[in-house]
Amino acid sequence: MYHPTRERSGRERDQMEIKSKVLVIGGTGYLGKRLVKASLGQGHETYVLYRPEIGVDIEKVQVLLSFKEQGAHLVQGSFNDQRSLVDAVKLVDVVICAVSGVHIRSHQILLQLKLVDAIKEAGNVKRFLPSEFGTDPAKMENAMEPGRVTFDDKMVVRKAIEDAGIPFTYVSANCFAGYFLGGLCQPGHIIPSREHVSILGNGKEKAIYVDEDDIAMYTIKTVDDPRTLNKTLYIRPPNNILSQREVVQIWEKLIGKELRKSTISSEEFLACMREQDYAEQVGLTHYYHVCYEGCLTNFEIGDEGEEASELYPEVKYTTVEKYMKRYL
Amino acid sequence: MYHPTRERSGRERDQMEIKSKVLVIGGTGYLGKRLVKASLGQGHETYVLYRPEIGVDIEKVQVLLSFKEQGAHLVQGSFNDQRSLVDAVKLVDVVICAVSGVHIRSHQILLQLKLVDAIKEAGNVKRFLPSEFGTDPAKMENAMEPGRVTFDDKMVVRKAIEDAGIPFTYVSANCFAGYFLGGLCQPGHIIPSREHVSILGNGKEKAIYVDEDDIAMYTIKTVDDPRTLNKTLYIRPPNNILSQREVVQIWEKLIGKELRKSTISSEEFLACMREQDYAEQVGLTHYYHVCYEGCLTNFEIGDEGEEASELYPEVKYTTVEKYMKRYL
Repeated sequence: MYHPTRERSGRERDQMEIKSKVLVIGGTGYLGKRLVKASLGQGHETYVLYRPEIGVDIEKVQVLLSFKEQGAHLVQGSFNDQRSLVDAVKLVDVVICAVSGVHIRSHQILLQLKLVDAIKEAGNVKRFLPSEFGTDPAKMENAMEPGRVTFDDKMVVRKAIEDAGIPFTYVSANCFAGYFLGGLCQPGHIIPSREHVSILGNGKEKAIYVDEDDIAMYTIKTVDDPRTLNKTLYIRPPNNILSQREVVQIWEKLIGKELRKSTISSEEFLACMREQDYAEQVGLTHYYHVCYEGCLTNFEIGDEGEEASELYPEVKYTTVEKYMKRYL
Repeated sequence: MYHPTRERSGRERDQMEIKSKVLVIGGTGYLGKRLVKASLGQGHETYVLYRPEIGVDIEKVQVLLSFKEQGAHLVQGSFNDQRSLVDAVKLVDVVICAVSGVHIRSHQILLQLKLVDAIKEAGNVKRFLPSEFGTDPAKMENAMEPGRVTFDDKMVVRKAIEDAGIPFTYVSANCFAGYFLGGLCQPGHIIPSREHVSILGNGKEKAIYVDEDDIAMYTIKTVDDPRTLNKTLYIRPPNNILSQREVVQIWEKLIGKELRKSTISSEEFLACMREQDYAEQVGLTHYYHVCYEGCLTNFEIGDEGEEASELYPEVKYTTVEKYMKRYL
């Protein structure tokens, strides 16, 4: 029998076929929340791991419930229960892990080794995106202590993924706009001052700032894209590659006023850093590499990588100026 | 000259006149977020205190930014800077404080004494709603240690308010639905089990469960209402006055299955409680008074109080059954 309502165009069929089911782990976190939203928004059947360790953290539970209301499936599972991880992974095609790797929040990067084992055992996953979303650890062999732990641990996870033969995409998203633009590139600040800014070094090293919603958008775009299979996706929106001084200028233009400026030499920065506690030191090391050394922009993307705004020119990413208007 | 577009009906004029400007303190918290939303939603010009102590808590900062986007004004101020509190208070007619008083989050009730001083000094505030939103402390003279600290501290704040002659409304909102319904009235749980529940005592003492959005809705309704001036607003939605066993029955009906049940006698509950740390003990004391003693429903509302669902019958409050459907 002929059912006209069941007829689909070739394009529609293709689109339906390529929408993988996605599991997000760490879905209540800062980036995880946005990944879930983007995954649902792009029409993926979306699963979110609900970890019993959440306890009586009512705001996280309510985030999970709101995902459910928006159509996501909650799946119980725990890093302390390998069986539960395997079962969760078996439900989907793509696994995205967004557990925190920032020491001032929590550093759970190596927990992912259990997830790698689970994905290997399950055997059905077409793509795994481990928790990266920052500086490319493969470019940070010479990073300083103690911040290098972030990169070292991420490389351990990468090795486990590749040894297990799991298809992957690594996402290097560079600087989260909320932290870097909110703070005018100053560590310890996330609301831009209208009075004063400390310039790190000469303030001229270029960094790359990405709206966290755009990170999530590009990340989800990549999951079914053969061009990013077993590659690193670098998110480098061309208009957002700017030095600290350029960021400050944009802000000054928006508020119609020049900020008072002082300068922190690299020696001063490092001396201050050594007085902080461990978690702070890790974060400050990253600011050092980004703002004093320009580690995000001192290399070309090679054959192992792709650039997000080139792959997905249809995404109208948020410019630095537009992002900063929210603080006015 | 006659401007027809400037003409307003008497009713519109009245509504415009009675919409006070509202300042919310603690606006990024669990209840505070909802108060800001309700205040904006009911058309009040809404101010939210932005405390520099927020540091690099990026999720709170982003909540503040989203309020700004929705039309709220952010006002810098700190409990460590009395001048800033006075200045903030001078901007508005009504001050609502929602700093946390729950020890497992933080217990900041007595900080409000500084706010009382600021309101007194500013001299312009038409109504102050201190952080209450739970059990009426005036009914808890005989509460147990260590939980009674919550009630004692709230009474200290009440006395300061009344001694200063500040017009007030106290809101007794009873049990937050997220905690009590989510946990089937069991402390330490906020997601309802589909397998088992521990019944506290005979499970027959009546408590009162209120959707947190409804708490915020009623609270904002009261700020310009002369009927609640210098009174306590009790939120007692009649259909939500239920025992633990009745709550469990509603859940069982929703999931189509009976839970296994065990019972915790009051002696067992108190013995377990004494083994916990201080913050936990405070919370458990409150569960004890609510679930074993029925402290929320063992008194009539007298002349000093008003009942919210009677005052505002137009509010279609969320019933327990409707609330619990979100967990299905």
